[in-house]
Amino acid sequence: MAGTLYGVGVGPGDPELVTVKALRILQSVPVLAWPAPEDGPSLAREIVAAYLPGTQREIPIRMPLLPARFPADDVYDKAAIEVGAALSADDDVAVICEGDPFFYGSFMYLFGRLAGDHTIEVVPGVSSLTACAAALGAPLSAKNDVLTVIPGPLNADTMKQRLADADTAAIIKVGRHFDKIRGVIDELGLAGNARYIERATMAEQRIVALADVGDGDAPYFSMILVHKRKEAWK
Amino acid sequence: MAGTLYGVGVGPGDPELVTVKALRILQSVPVLAWPAPEDGPSLAREIVAAYLPGTQREIPIRMPLLPARFPADDVYDKAAIEVGAALSADDDVAVICEGDPFFYGSFMYLFGRLAGDHTIEVVPGVSSLTACAAALGAPLSAKNDVLTVIPGPLNADTMKQRLADADTAAIIKVGRHFDKIRGVIDELGLAGNARYIERATMAEQRIVALADVGDGDAPYFSMILVHKRKEAWK
Repeated sequence: MAGTLYGVGVGPGDPELVTVKALRILQSVPVLAWPAPEDGPSLAREIVAAYLPGTQREIPIRMPLLPARFPADDVYDKAAIEVGAALSADDDVAVICEGDPFFYGSFMYLFGRLAGDHTIEVVPGVSSLTACAAALGAPLSAKNDVLTVIPGPLNADTMKQRLADADTAAIIKVGRHFDKIRGVIDELGLAGNARYIERATMAEQRIVALADVGDGDAPYFSMILVHKRKEAWK
Repeated sequence: MAGTLYGVGVGPGDPELVTVKALRILQSVPVLAWPAPEDGPSLAREIVAAYLPGTQREIPIRMPLLPARFPADDVYDKAAIEVGAALSADDDVAVICEGDPFFYGSFMYLFGRLAGDHTIEVVPGVSSLTACAAALGAPLSAKNDVLTVIPGPLNADTMKQRLADADTAAIIKVGRHFDKIRGVIDELGLAGNARYIERATMAEQRIVALADVGDGDAPYFSMILVHKRKEAWK
């Protein structure tokens, strides 16, 4: 009987937005793995830190900041070997993920490497998508609107086409792409339809007018919602 | 000091997918409101039934099945008056919603009516979008994929265009639109890229090949995921 791998979404940042199921699994597995930058703390681990029993073996999955190596195959190869060994030794392992594991999450790279040989259960979490809409007080999508999620790294032409076609759009992973994105929004005349938020539900959450975001100021955890039909919910 | 209106997402169906925050609010407010069909139980209330203290005043928001009255203005007008009266009497009110309140949720109609005069906090929940991906074992969106959420009621031509343009698509509110949707998927040659699921995370969850869904069999709570790049996560 081998162990089960749990991909556990821990939500957008507020520790209270962890689900009851995530909590139960986090507190019962013998091995916990978490993503982190090369140096410094893991945001996913910080979200659940207060809930952890403190007796688990922990496996850090540290990702160097090297855009050229995206996705960083050797890091995931190594993590898959380490996590796979724990599973083969009959230990259940929880890999925690900010937001939801399958919504643009790096968990899918472990999933892709381990799904053939191991039992995997994905525990969905509250994604940044709905957390940002809640914090902004702006319903994400109504009635028969098409909702389009647009990654910030897309080039300006592609982004412009996608945004032109959308009823409602969520532009995610804004970060260092902010200036390009604001340019696209301005070109389409949609500045009045756009709402910007960073670090939704975290203690440092900040909502500011698009025009007031300084060049280079947007963090990775930021999002812009664009509603073509303003106040569709009224 | 008036009461606060909480729009509380209770997740896709599994009671364990309720968040710690939703639970705290549900168990502390004096008034609980829930959506339901004209006759019969409220799914949202059933999801959280085991957690309720049993001492709350409850406000049913019953929606007749009349597509022509969509959105059913008089039902929401009446509910807004009743909920608003409780808030004005200094009671906090939680309105519970399946999934997330702002992801195609009917909560937005109460929000639209009450936001000007009352304090409202939206508590995001796990949406069916990520719950379906988790249950299907299929990462929703990876890297710089554009994710498009397409409501099933759209007409076939619009749906075909949206689906043709998408990298990954989630077709929601399938229900009685299933035959039309399967037709569009077939026309685009995407049957091999589509995954169907109904009632994700509920006890009655069912995953079945698209070709094996009988005419008229799909319930409202069903979804089809279409990945243009198959197994992008590998």
